[in-house]
Amino acid sequence: MKSKRNVYLKMKPLAEARKILSDAFPRFGTLEAETVPAPDAAGRVLAEPIFASVSAPNFHAAAMDGVAVKAEITFGISETRPGELIIGKDAFYVNTGHVLPDGTNAVIMVEHLNVLDEDRVEIEAPAFPWQNVRRMGEDIVATELLFSRNHRVTPYCVGALIEGGVFSVPVRRKPRVMVIPTGSEIVDWRKTPIENVTPGQVLDSNSYVLGKLTEACGGEFVRHEVVRDDLGLITQAVEEAVKGNFDIVLTVGGSSAGSEDYTREMMADLGEVLVHGVTIMPGKPVLIGKIGNKPVLGMPGYPVSMIVAFEQFVRPLICRMLGQPEPEPVKIPVETTRKLPSRLGVEEFLRVRLGKVGDRIVATSLPRGAGCITSITEADGIIRIPAHSEGIREHETVTAELLRPLNTIRNTLVAVGSHDNTLDVLADQLRADHGGLTLSSSHVGSMGGLMAIKRGVCHLAGSHLLDTEDGSYNLSWVKRFLPETAVRIVNLVFREQGLIVARGNPKGIQGIEDLAREDVRFMNRQSGSGTRILLDYRLGQIGMAPASVNGYATEEFTHMAVAVAVLSGSVDVGLGIYAAAKALNLDFIPVVTEQYDLIIPEEYFGSENMRILLDTINTGAFKSRVEALGGYSTEKTGEIIL
Amino acid sequence: MKSKRNVYLKMKPLAEARKILSDAFPRFGTLEAETVPAPDAAGRVLAEPIFASVSAPNFHAAAMDGVAVKAEITFGISETRPGELIIGKDAFYVNTGHVLPDGTNAVIMVEHLNVLDEDRVEIEAPAFPWQNVRRMGEDIVATELLFSRNHRVTPYCVGALIEGGVFSVPVRRKPRVMVIPTGSEIVDWRKTPIENVTPGQVLDSNSYVLGKLTEACGGEFVRHEVVRDDLGLITQAVEEAVKGNFDIVLTVGGSSAGSEDYTREMMADLGEVLVHGVTIMPGKPVLIGKIGNKPVLGMPGYPVSMIVAFEQFVRPLICRMLGQPEPEPVKIPVETTRKLPSRLGVEEFLRVRLGKVGDRIVATSLPRGAGCITSITEADGIIRIPAHSEGIREHETVTAELLRPLNTIRNTLVAVGSHDNTLDVLADQLRADHGGLTLSSSHVGSMGGLMAIKRGVCHLAGSHLLDTEDGSYNLSWVKRFLPETAVRIVNLVFREQGLIVARGNPKGIQGIEDLAREDVRFMNRQSGSGTRILLDYRLGQIGMAPASVNGYATEEFTHMAVAVAVLSGSVDVGLGIYAAAKALNLDFIPVVTEQYDLIIPEEYFGSENMRILLDTINTGAFKSRVEALGGYSTEKTGEIIL
Repeated sequence: MKSKRNVYLKMKPLAEARKILSDAFPRFGTLEAETVPAPDAAGRVLAEPIFASVSAPNFHAAAMDGVAVKAEITFGISETRPGELIIGKDAFYVNTGHVLPDGTNAVIMVEHLNVLDEDRVEIEAPAFPWQNVRRMGEDIVATELLFSRNHRVTPYCVGALIEGGVFSVPVRRKPRVMVIPTGSEIVDWRKTPIENVTPGQVLDSNSYVLGKLTEACGGEFVRHEVVRDDLGLITQAVEEAVKGNFDIVLTVGGSSAGSEDYTREMMADLGEVLVHGVTIMPGKPVLIGKIGNKPVLGMPGYPVSMIVAFEQFVRPLICRMLGQPEPEPVKIPVETTRKLPSRLGVEEFLRVRLGKVGDRIVATSLPRGAGCITSITEADGIIRIPAHSEGIREHETVTAELLRPLNTIRNTLVAVGSHDNTLDVLADQLRADHGGLTLSSSHVGSMGGLMAIKRGVCHLAGSHLLDTEDGSYNLSWVKRFLPETAVRIVNLVFREQGLIVARGNPKGIQGIEDLAREDVRFMNRQSGSGTRILLDYRLGQIGMAPASVNGYATEEFTHMAVAVAVLSGSVDVGLGIYAAAKALNLDFIPVVTEQYDLIIPEEYFGSENMRILLDTINTGAFKSRVEALGGYSTEKTGEIIL
Repeated sequence: MKSKRNVYLKMKPLAEARKILSDAFPRFGTLEAETVPAPDAAGRVLAEPIFASVSAPNFHAAAMDGVAVKAEITFGISETRPGELIIGKDAFYVNTGHVLPDGTNAVIMVEHLNVLDEDRVEIEAPAFPWQNVRRMGEDIVATELLFSRNHRVTPYCVGALIEGGVFSVPVRRKPRVMVIPTGSEIVDWRKTPIENVTPGQVLDSNSYVLGKLTEACGGEFVRHEVVRDDLGLITQAVEEAVKGNFDIVLTVGGSSAGSEDYTREMMADLGEVLVHGVTIMPGKPVLIGKIGNKPVLGMPGYPVSMIVAFEQFVRPLICRMLGQPEPEPVKIPVETTRKLPSRLGVEEFLRVRLGKVGDRIVATSLPRGAGCITSITEADGIIRIPAHSEGIREHETVTAELLRPLNTIRNTLVAVGSHDNTLDVLADQLRADHGGLTLSSSHVGSMGGLMAIKRGVCHLAGSHLLDTEDGSYNLSWVKRFLPETAVRIVNLVFREQGLIVARGNPKGIQGIEDLAREDVRFMNRQSGSGTRILLDYRLGQIGMAPASVNGYATEEFTHMAVAVAVLSGSVDVGLGIYAAAKALNLDFIPVVTEQYDLIIPEEYFGSENMRILLDTINTGAFKSRVEALGGYSTEKTGEIIL
């Protein structure tokens, strides 16, 4: 281990760090213009105010098919005193869009004409001046301001530009961002086949995420080759980028205070470190610097840290260069489903799933680690827990910033409870058939699901709670734990639970009894999960004490996590479903076939979304996909049990 | 005139027409897949469910710099009973991201180590299993579902795809739309210089708007050359497009029931007309058909009609092909500023400006004509007036569908009142310096502005109301008409009003007296406008009766509209500001220099947005732009008069 370690400069609160950055780079909308044809301006930002060069219409135009007249000659005409007009003298046939003949100022609709012969028509009502006429300049007057500078051009605007005779449009060129991934462990998946990637190596995803985030806010990016942890190489790459035609330079990784983190040293060598470390989580180890009058940022290597740092620091820079306000997220009040302690002195960006259950939007916390990219890809919103707060109480109403439109969230069925792989199949089948309907599943075990129903924070709960008295599932548990809630029970699947062991079963495990062996390490499921209850029941049946199981106290929350523990060699065996073992190519010793049901509060049973879900469960498409997973029976799938 | 005219088939209500279309083309998410590299999937729609092919992390990784240990050997260690660990045997130095050495399951942070020498460290607390470790599969487990099909990939998702080892991604190919502009009057501005465009000809903007709308909802488009009004040519173009590899064919223009509208005949010849005419406004003359099992739509030629028809019929088709729900607009309650009658039996899509004034969001109607593209480029929202309604009452609370984000609307200063070109300069200067702040101006004349303040529907009003007793401006009017509202008055400009006449002043007009001449046609401004009051004052001074002015009863609402009337030859003269005459290269006979002020309710005078506006007025940049317009003096600009 190298003994050299960086230390953070005094860490800054978010607002202060943002102010330091904007004070250092205050230029607003100063990127030079490039000229593009009007249609290509869509989505771009105007670099100059745009004035119309022609009027629209550019002539007085008939707005109806009929005859053009001078209105004044029709005054006095009525049903009782009809008037005759001579075609070619008093009246002129026109179609919609035609130029009004000189001397006319009104159009009488063809429906209101009595055609007497080729040369004469009769009318029974006067015309008023400018009736059925689109007057010159009615829409656009030449020389008038069409759009202010810094206006973002929409497809609609393209129409106004062209109608106004503006065919070449000065738009701000896109800010150019150089993204430099750093780290000796980083592997370029475009060059290295996946099978050559060894433990300890990490695929470079971050630089692409930064690039796509850059594009999404109107910039363009170039990705540098991966630079290994070498101060000289990193310095060289940044120096070249700063001297080149980039507006912003981002390094990824090495921004922290570890012994192999060179970004700060590079920045201090080449320019000035403005901020090192911000009291936010994720996102803390961000570096903000100025080199050759250009912004250079050291982005954290953990993906969610990096994303938060981008959105808090890089996006505002890009927006400012384009003369655009920073996009403000839509904010809504939400209710949290459980207590969420948070560290004092740090502003946390908590990723949450959201769902509308009854009258409330409920928020369920996703994993809080900065390394967990799925915690943000699965998030519907962000709750910002302020630095001065120690966290959020259960059922507290707080503000969430939306990551998806509110109506998507309203169209989400919230499942909380036991984990089963068929829920993924169901979610996909719903999206396949009804793109607008999302099934969002949180895995807290069967009992957790019942409690979620009790607290009114979900639409349905997956459950496989065994009644150890009579061998039935769920019914007695629902009666006992939800005495005051009317619920329905629908079977989803029957499934095999068993012991998941390494390929080839090297420890020769045959059944539950083997869990007592000294040389067998076990991974348990959390208490309240149906699988834990099943284990306890079996242990009781054969008179084995939990304490005799090596690893009884270690818990995972899903079947897949248990299977991973076996795959990685952390443990020798776990209890779980066949599908999990099969997915990871592990061996499986069946123990029991159990019933896995959906518990649905009566309140939501009749809803349109639930109807679609239940219809989908009953489709052959769903059932055959489930059967294909292995270890499942769909014999009673969709059957209403209660 | 040709005598042949089409008739509409029975017109359909919107919901019925939409159902006919979706019943005819029900296929959901059936566009075939194309495979793209993971980063390029951003913004695209997944054609298949995506399962992870590797786990992330793919190994147990140190989450901190420190030493890796087997936690169990540290149990029992405490401050009073510190433990010594041998490097290389009990403990192994690791940096963040390193693979955990075999047999270890925890990392002790470097900050918590007492380094005794090269080979030994001491700790004063036990480690618990998996502390400071990112476990294999913690983020992503190989084989698990990453994203359902029909999921739209975000920049965040790109990270999860790559981390999950998914480098090639099956996305739905973009629906291909052929856009065929039709009409003998349509001119291709890419080919015809603007100076060669003659009255009666119309620039083709519509096909580009359709193309950009198509792209915005995930499709791609090809624009056909303009086809003139000829049944054979139109038929040939559509037939080729349908036989080609397009998913949707759109013609533009000729969809109505006029004598030169061939789209319906073409459609009936080649396939089937499903709908001709929908009871919406704008958008009525849309044609929906099916040719060779493909959707072919005849889009109306008026731009706003076309846009409404696209959004109601074409966008849903594209979304369905992509397996996406139709985007739902954000809806908010708004209050209308005046009565808005609407035709019974027709659903109107009313374009409105929105602004937050006090606690309410107020909606001001924009021009209602289908030909007015600026009515939609300037709109903040759409109010849909149902077919069964005769309109909206003044101050009624109705629902608006937003076209811009709500916070943009909150950041809009609403000006209602007299029109002056410097308001455009001010709006642009605000956007130049503060991209987030919009000044939205509605032109209803000076008195209209005072009434808008009285009704609390604006933040400021431009006004130039002359007190004919003492020659002062605005002060006495404010006292008389806003006795109960505390307001401030700030001078914006002094400006020249005068007679606007054709270039070279062919009628030899010298002053107000000439308006009584038989051969002079005058265009007046609406009553309540400061300019009308000025005219009446001058007429009174010289003892001329309004009735003696030829055209006294014809009214326009802005200086520019008056200037256009002169330019187009509709009238010979109008009263207006020098800037309007100069803009259209007309001649100008000065009559008076008048004071143009901003009237600002005390309530909004101290707001942050108003402070920015007043600061901007006082900048040299603003003043010199105003002076450059001509006919203005900025001597007192920014002076607080009351």
